[in-house]
Amino acid sequence: MMLKKAQILNFTKLYRFGQPFKTAAVVCPVDGSAFEPVNTIDGMAMAFREGGIALTISLSPSDRVFGLGETIGALNKRGKKYRLYTTDDPVHTPGKENLYGSHPFVLAGSALTNPFGFFIDYPSEICLDIGFTNHNVMEVAIPSMNFDIYFFSATGRTLTFMEIVKEFLLLTGAPYCPPKWGFGYQQSRWSYPDAKSVAETASRFRKEGIPCDAIYMDIDYMDNFKVFTIDEVKFPDFQTFAGMLKKDGFRLIPIIDPGVKIEDGYGVYEEGRRRGLFCEAKDGSFFKAAVWPGLTHLPDFLNPETRRWWGGLCTRFLDMGIEGFWLDMNEPSIFYTPAAIHEVFNLVDEMKGNPDIPKRRLQDMLNKLSNNRAYFREFYHRTPSGGRVSNEEVHNLYGTLMTEAVADGFITNMPGRRYFLLTRSSYVGLHRYAAIWTGDNMSWWEHMLAHIRMLMSLNMAGVFYTGADIGGFGSDVSPELMIRWMQLGVFSPLFRNHSAFGTRRREPWAFDGQAFDIMRDTIKLRYALIPYAYSEFMRSVRELSPFIRPLMFDFDCRFDVEDQFMYGSSIMAAPVLLPNATGRYVLLPTVSWLYCRALRHDKWAVSVIPQGVHYIDCPLCMTPFFIKENSIVTLSEPVNYVGEREIEVLRAVAFVTETASFTYYDDDGLTDGYKKGVYSTLQINIVSSGGQYAITIMAEGPRTTKIKRIDFEIYGRNAGLCRCSRQLPNQ
Amino acid sequence: MMLKKAQILNFTKLYRFGQPFKTAAVVCPVDGSAFEPVNTIDGMAMAFREGGIALTISLSPSDRVFGLGETIGALNKRGKKYRLYTTDDPVHTPGKENLYGSHPFVLAGSALTNPFGFFIDYPSEICLDIGFTNHNVMEVAIPSMNFDIYFFSATGRTLTFMEIVKEFLLLTGAPYCPPKWGFGYQQSRWSYPDAKSVAETASRFRKEGIPCDAIYMDIDYMDNFKVFTIDEVKFPDFQTFAGMLKKDGFRLIPIIDPGVKIEDGYGVYEEGRRRGLFCEAKDGSFFKAAVWPGLTHLPDFLNPETRRWWGGLCTRFLDMGIEGFWLDMNEPSIFYTPAAIHEVFNLVDEMKGNPDIPKRRLQDMLNKLSNNRAYFREFYHRTPSGGRVSNEEVHNLYGTLMTEAVADGFITNMPGRRYFLLTRSSYVGLHRYAAIWTGDNMSWWEHMLAHIRMLMSLNMAGVFYTGADIGGFGSDVSPELMIRWMQLGVFSPLFRNHSAFGTRRREPWAFDGQAFDIMRDTIKLRYALIPYAYSEFMRSVRELSPFIRPLMFDFDCRFDVEDQFMYGSSIMAAPVLLPNATGRYVLLPTVSWLYCRALRHDKWAVSVIPQGVHYIDCPLCMTPFFIKENSIVTLSEPVNYVGEREIEVLRAVAFVTETASFTYYDDDGLTDGYKKGVYSTLQINIVSSGGQYAITIMAEGPRTTKIKRIDFEIYGRNAGLCRCSRQLPNQ
Repeated sequence: MMLKKAQILNFTKLYRFGQPFKTAAVVCPVDGSAFEPVNTIDGMAMAFREGGIALTISLSPSDRVFGLGETIGALNKRGKKYRLYTTDDPVHTPGKENLYGSHPFVLAGSALTNPFGFFIDYPSEICLDIGFTNHNVMEVAIPSMNFDIYFFSATGRTLTFMEIVKEFLLLTGAPYCPPKWGFGYQQSRWSYPDAKSVAETASRFRKEGIPCDAIYMDIDYMDNFKVFTIDEVKFPDFQTFAGMLKKDGFRLIPIIDPGVKIEDGYGVYEEGRRRGLFCEAKDGSFFKAAVWPGLTHLPDFLNPETRRWWGGLCTRFLDMGIEGFWLDMNEPSIFYTPAAIHEVFNLVDEMKGNPDIPKRRLQDMLNKLSNNRAYFREFYHRTPSGGRVSNEEVHNLYGTLMTEAVADGFITNMPGRRYFLLTRSSYVGLHRYAAIWTGDNMSWWEHMLAHIRMLMSLNMAGVFYTGADIGGFGSDVSPELMIRWMQLGVFSPLFRNHSAFGTRRREPWAFDGQAFDIMRDTIKLRYALIPYAYSEFMRSVRELSPFIRPLMFDFDCRFDVEDQFMYGSSIMAAPVLLPNATGRYVLLPTVSWLYCRALRHDKWAVSVIPQGVHYIDCPLCMTPFFIKENSIVTLSEPVNYVGEREIEVLRAVAFVTETASFTYYDDDGLTDGYKKGVYSTLQINIVSSGGQYAITIMAEGPRTTKIKRIDFEIYGRNAGLCRCSRQLPNQ
Repeated sequence: MMLKKAQILNFTKLYRFGQPFKTAAVVCPVDGSAFEPVNTIDGMAMAFREGGIALTISLSPSDRVFGLGETIGALNKRGKKYRLYTTDDPVHTPGKENLYGSHPFVLAGSALTNPFGFFIDYPSEICLDIGFTNHNVMEVAIPSMNFDIYFFSATGRTLTFMEIVKEFLLLTGAPYCPPKWGFGYQQSRWSYPDAKSVAETASRFRKEGIPCDAIYMDIDYMDNFKVFTIDEVKFPDFQTFAGMLKKDGFRLIPIIDPGVKIEDGYGVYEEGRRRGLFCEAKDGSFFKAAVWPGLTHLPDFLNPETRRWWGGLCTRFLDMGIEGFWLDMNEPSIFYTPAAIHEVFNLVDEMKGNPDIPKRRLQDMLNKLSNNRAYFREFYHRTPSGGRVSNEEVHNLYGTLMTEAVADGFITNMPGRRYFLLTRSSYVGLHRYAAIWTGDNMSWWEHMLAHIRMLMSLNMAGVFYTGADIGGFGSDVSPELMIRWMQLGVFSPLFRNHSAFGTRRREPWAFDGQAFDIMRDTIKLRYALIPYAYSEFMRSVRELSPFIRPLMFDFDCRFDVEDQFMYGSSIMAAPVLLPNATGRYVLLPTVSWLYCRALRHDKWAVSVIPQGVHYIDCPLCMTPFFIKENSIVTLSEPVNYVGEREIEVLRAVAFVTETASFTYYDDDGLTDGYKKGVYSTLQINIVSSGGQYAITIMAEGPRTTKIKRIDFEIYGRNAGLCRCSRQLPNQ
């Protein structure tokens, strides 16, 4: 075994086994001379197993294990098995070991034991048994002798979980920022199949006074599911149509799938074939996989030339005014291959001749038809060096490199501008240039909790801007679940309502009047909170500190809390997660909290609740959240869409018993000027003293904010309210 | 429409539509002359729809809806759709509308609105939309003009939920009582396939000192899955074997499936065919359905002659010492029919000729192969009157009448003796002569909550003795989940550990030493509590009041509590339901509670906790439960199996601030003598006064108990402990 070690960054050691495949997950250059040969890895026992390496790590009774990004199950990963192998599995039941992404970044420890972390940079399957077989052992199996492990730890001091995440982000790069309109509400459906239904949806939002910034176009906008086409009958003169909607504040977000339909005369197919940009079967022919369009070829995104080609193909949409895409099916998803179908036919023939063959075999075979693991061993990529590798060896990179291709398309065509980009499949590194949504969840109350847990886990993995389909993608939703999920959506960075073909409609007007009113008011609350959320999000990106965090990252908690989360540093979200509930249990750690129940964005019931365990009442019509003691939240009047008008008046709601401060942030919301410091801030401070509040506001930054006035609502320990306003000097 | 009404019982009105099929659900004779014609039903709006009737009931904001027995979802049924049509669905995800049983009994109301209930006696599909489409409307659709509705309500006074349940049980009969050994621990596995594995399992229990009363025999004990056979190779000399095990305190419980393998020379098949006791296809031939044995005929349990025959077939087992069965697959489950397989073959042929047929069609067809609704329209029963009805018309009775046949077999062959009988499928009325287990759950934390909710719902429907597979039937279980579920099992009337083929083993010794120790101690706690549980269970049966109840039945609760339950009237169970949790939230209603954490049956940590909301600590090694203020729990030293030795010393743990009383009950545990009053009781009273406790014990009943001494542990408001003993006079 060839193992070597290099110290990189303050708390990061790189252990290199053999010659790893270069994944681009890491942005820190490693100096070859920094390596020294070693035999062991800190704190891990190593064993060889089945051509790979198994690492075992002892867990103390108090150790929590976090990380792994997009996985189903508890936030504390202890007690379950996980398999990091990207897959399109539409049924997220609790036992599932893998989903669409692979984020092999783990944090472990507790206040009693020195926390540590590790990131295994390896682009194929990694299996983790985290205290499942044996509660006190974490076992990590990597079926290879060529991979990198970055180990995060400190000697002589205790690292916090927050510091480990920061170290991981120093290593892998700063998170992606969507355009500011990405913080608006987004409406999707499989499908708004034509211009008429999109236009009707858009105008209904405006008519009803429900803010909305984006409408998604699912697979039916294409001509026969052919990628990069638009059905001209359903969407005549798309460019004019897109422009018209944009004038009204709606961005259109078309879906892009990887599979290119095999069809003579179809340009994308013809060009990809001519230039040899598709994945190959063992015999060198182009591999065939069936997806929505029927049989397709899969673009070989491992090949940089394919990526450039694909990025260029996006141009036709960009030219028509599109500023965002969502990339689907890129695990890649394969419904079946011609060979697999052939096997089914053969079995049926055999069965006809022999009634003793159990019919179960046919069912089993059919059940394994979608995304059979064997497919991924049957096709090959060209790597930058020209070598051929099977998809199996680099499986988890496919969606990420497809996303990189599209991101590069944007960057090339809209230099200096932010773009909106969601992908379903992901690997570490992707968080630098795109976001993910969490795939095909269900209209189950349990999946609201899954949404919350994934927000926290994905934020640890650097995917700050993310979210699950509000209301659940699959199956029908009750008005109550839709409302409660919308209330969670207020605190989900990506706030997208999406649903599957054939399910109950999810637009607010699809429900009864009472439910409709609540949903409209909930979405308006989201918009009112954007001045807070955007400020905190951008600070999180600058400081490489998760925007969404478990309470345990900020506070000493008496017990694990997985159904509440910090949304920036002033707000704790605690949505109601049970049917028919008129409230919920909460743990309020360390300090007092201002409990806010928003009936509307400008009509809240508030009360101060001391630290401890409580059952808080929250009727269906109210969105619950907490403002932390000594902190400030900034709001504005909701707009119909982000950028509709300049925000000139801020509302600052504060809960102050001593001193509170907040940095209000704004920028153009559309460019990456923020990376060069092109933004402005208002530093707001409130000091409580002798029943009085001293307020100071300090403007900073090159771009002057348009804020003219801040209206303060300051609550003290007994929820007594002080209202006052401050004019800001003209600048 | 022909609708008439009769008052029966105090609070029950029967509304009869047309000429209902006689289901035997109800035990109250209805006098024909009591009917009067009417046009409406109390509080319901009626509409005709698709050949049937739709009833709508308005719900007030505060109304809770309970009932429906075995269904997935919340205890409060509001916000979901349900379909009462018995089916073998092995994946109990939250959206599922129907499971194995049909219990069309609903309770609704709140403290603010007068509670009412109804039972729709109709043996085929009933669809309920309970505030799903519209939160304030319950809609019940019955696709028939011939059915009975029993409506439970009072005028001039408020009925309680408990009174409505009692009324329902007066109408449908008193619950089944298993033999006392049914309160012991039961070990199952798919499969202990031979005598050796059963014997090893049994002796391991004794060797490890883990109490156990029963071992189940899953399908592999049969010769080629032929019902009423025993594989003579795997189980030579079964009678001797069963006798040997019984001597050691183990009952063997074989599985019985309905499908009779079509095989010449197989006696059961030959006889059924000869006597015409199988269900018929439309053309009068015997209907063919594939289940475990391959193609089978389904016994026509609607025909009384079939039931007598089937009951008689059980005799061969009874003669060999068997005292219990579990009846599976009796929804009935159908893997496929020859015609359905033929369609698959045809589609494949078509696909070969036409590559444009989407492969999805084949997958869809295969997905619908199991338990396709169409099958149940394709076979027919002979009714007692000799008429022919399709299974569809009486679908939900199939499993119940199979169970009745076996129960009658027991009653005929072992008159006066209790028998042990579980069934998977059920309809109202079955609760008089058998119990159910809740089918193929999964090793998901979420299914512990489903277990708790079903315990409560099934108890409302009269199935007092019931339970779910501990640890979950499907998929692998972690040691932590297994332990927490065992701790719930302590308070599950049926305490059975069962698991599917291919999953991780579930016997206590299949886990690490620490987990093993906890499981053994947990099972011993269960046995120690039998003197309490059996007393309370038998009282519940006598008084027709649920043994397991939601808190809302006993107390004024500030909010819905679905994860705690009353286990008899002294104990409230509150198991830990989350991974990695070291405690949980609880609501303690109305009074103070003595919080008990049992490390072992004789080693508890106790503390008095006042009413309110709390987070209680409970490490993995401890079973949590609460003793209600002013109540008493009786225990004994655990035995290896129920009846191993006479209990002579009781331990009474009491939490007394004023006055507490408890009726200790015992009987022979094996006969129906209890129905004629052949049992004995000890009425135990404790009065607290001025720091002293006055204890009185009064023996009653014809059969004298063998109790010689009661050791008291009496806790007061400050958890101060008073220990004392009372000798009982010899009798």
